[in-house]
Amino acid sequence: MKEFELIRQIQQAASVGYPSGFKHGVELGIGDDAAVLNVPLGSHLVAATDTLNAGTHFPLETSAFDIGHKCLAVNLSDLAAMGASPRWALLSLSLPEADPEWVRSFFEGFQLLAQAHHVTLVGGDTTSGPLSLSLTALGLVEAGGQLTRSGARAGDLVVVSGTVGGAAHALEMLQAGKPALDRELLDRPQPRVELGQLLKGYATACIDVSDGLLADLGHVLKASGCAATLELEKLPTTSAVAELEDKLRWRYQLSGGDDYELLFTLPPRHAEKLSSWSRQLDINLSVIGEIETGNGVRCFTGDGTVFTAPGSGFEHFQEKS
Amino acid sequence: MKEFELIRQIQQAASVGYPSGFKHGVELGIGDDAAVLNVPLGSHLVAATDTLNAGTHFPLETSAFDIGHKCLAVNLSDLAAMGASPRWALLSLSLPEADPEWVRSFFEGFQLLAQAHHVTLVGGDTTSGPLSLSLTALGLVEAGGQLTRSGARAGDLVVVSGTVGGAAHALEMLQAGKPALDRELLDRPQPRVELGQLLKGYATACIDVSDGLLADLGHVLKASGCAATLELEKLPTTSAVAELEDKLRWRYQLSGGDDYELLFTLPPRHAEKLSSWSRQLDINLSVIGEIETGNGVRCFTGDGTVFTAPGSGFEHFQEKS
Repeated sequence: MKEFELIRQIQQAASVGYPSGFKHGVELGIGDDAAVLNVPLGSHLVAATDTLNAGTHFPLETSAFDIGHKCLAVNLSDLAAMGASPRWALLSLSLPEADPEWVRSFFEGFQLLAQAHHVTLVGGDTTSGPLSLSLTALGLVEAGGQLTRSGARAGDLVVVSGTVGGAAHALEMLQAGKPALDRELLDRPQPRVELGQLLKGYATACIDVSDGLLADLGHVLKASGCAATLELEKLPTTSAVAELEDKLRWRYQLSGGDDYELLFTLPPRHAEKLSSWSRQLDINLSVIGEIETGNGVRCFTGDGTVFTAPGSGFEHFQEKS
Repeated sequence: MKEFELIRQIQQAASVGYPSGFKHGVELGIGDDAAVLNVPLGSHLVAATDTLNAGTHFPLETSAFDIGHKCLAVNLSDLAAMGASPRWALLSLSLPEADPEWVRSFFEGFQLLAQAHHVTLVGGDTTSGPLSLSLTALGLVEAGGQLTRSGARAGDLVVVSGTVGGAAHALEMLQAGKPALDRELLDRPQPRVELGQLLKGYATACIDVSDGLLADLGHVLKASGCAATLELEKLPTTSAVAELEDKLRWRYQLSGGDDYELLFTLPPRHAEKLSSWSRQLDINLSVIGEIETGNGVRCFTGDGTVFTAPGSGFEHFQEKS
């Protein structure tokens, strides 16, 4: 398959599932030197980029469909953490060989998630090289309405969506040649776009959990200039991780990475919102701790002991606190 | 060097050369989940992305400084071809090892070109992997003012900036272990941003020459639904390429690639503009042919013979016409 044919295949894939004439702010999409896009008055543009390398960011044996899903999902997760509505994507696809079947399946996974969030692929390029996907996601947020990392204040609740630790555990099981029950958490993370929308005007800070809960909480605390306590027994997780002995379980939950859940801080006066958001979106929302003055994170076990977490997430955070 | 230190180094590099308080539409830059940017009323957003893999898009021995320059230059060249003003960039940097000296030198090259075009690095990510740079350039154009590939009409002049073939020749010399006089054309292409600005309202179509003159002219002709004649003796080139025998010279000029010049079509009534633009920007602008009805490209040699060009650029084009 030549590059031009590949681009034609991508161009076709990018329109799948949209009614003809669907414009969505695209003045000029794939097929010129650059895309021309329409940012409506009153909106800021929100832009995130993330690269996935085969063997580093997904196991080598991951299916093309799942790679297509994941490269978009991890970027939509960044937009979600800003409270932005996704709009457009540009994709750089580096492929060892241009296998039409692989490309077809990749775009099936990509486009299914794209459609669900009304994202249009408007550009990109294809190169020959080791399998790697670099995606830029563009979205919109009401000017001044964006969620950031820097607004957490003492007294705010620390809340996380879904579960944490499941993807990291599934990866380790796979790598050890054991059955991974929660492989879907690793391969098809669900970006919490709708949750990000609901949090605007309520959450004081928000981040997506991609490096591990403690590392990402650390980013929020550093940007906001405060500290936090976490109650380890309240950390939500999968049944596979829940079965592990405490310290191993906490390691996955605190430092696992690849969760793509939203971690946010919420003034207690808005706590009542949590159950209605949770019902509305059918997502678990767990209050796992509280923001305090000072710096650093103290983790409390069920019996009130302070626990120092191992793992790189925590080390990174200690360096920075 | 850990990833956080690397990001801190990048964050610092991205502000070099700008006065403190310089905002340039950046509401929120590096350091949150995504950048938040301000697109002014009356402007469209223009977005392009391009990946450079070591060994494919630049020789393995290319200096970090030049790689930093080139990964931004090739993307600014795409914005230039749309008539857009560059504003922001997001960079995905895949590095085999996080060598602080390499990173410093890379950002020196990057930032020097960024400053020259008032571009702010607003986001990106760093991953561990084979050396590869994936950059998304964002710019602005007056709504409806963009240059596209589709407006060429019979009778328009075909014009190219600078020289063509020099970069491809330099690459082949390097690969053959011979001295490459025009290495700078290969390593530090100059995006024709100011030229793109001037062409708006005059040029009927525009593209940047990256795949080779014939292939890129082919894209314009296909999008515009017309044909062209080229006069081979009028193709501008470097003195090193000018010395070669005709057919070899034409191969570099027509199919070389990596030129990053602008190829545009201009109604003859605007022909007088060429010399003033050329003086104003100190760039050569050569009329190399004419748009006709029909399809395909006919190349005329000095004595009027029709010449069929070899090389992949032309093959690609024949497939498509």
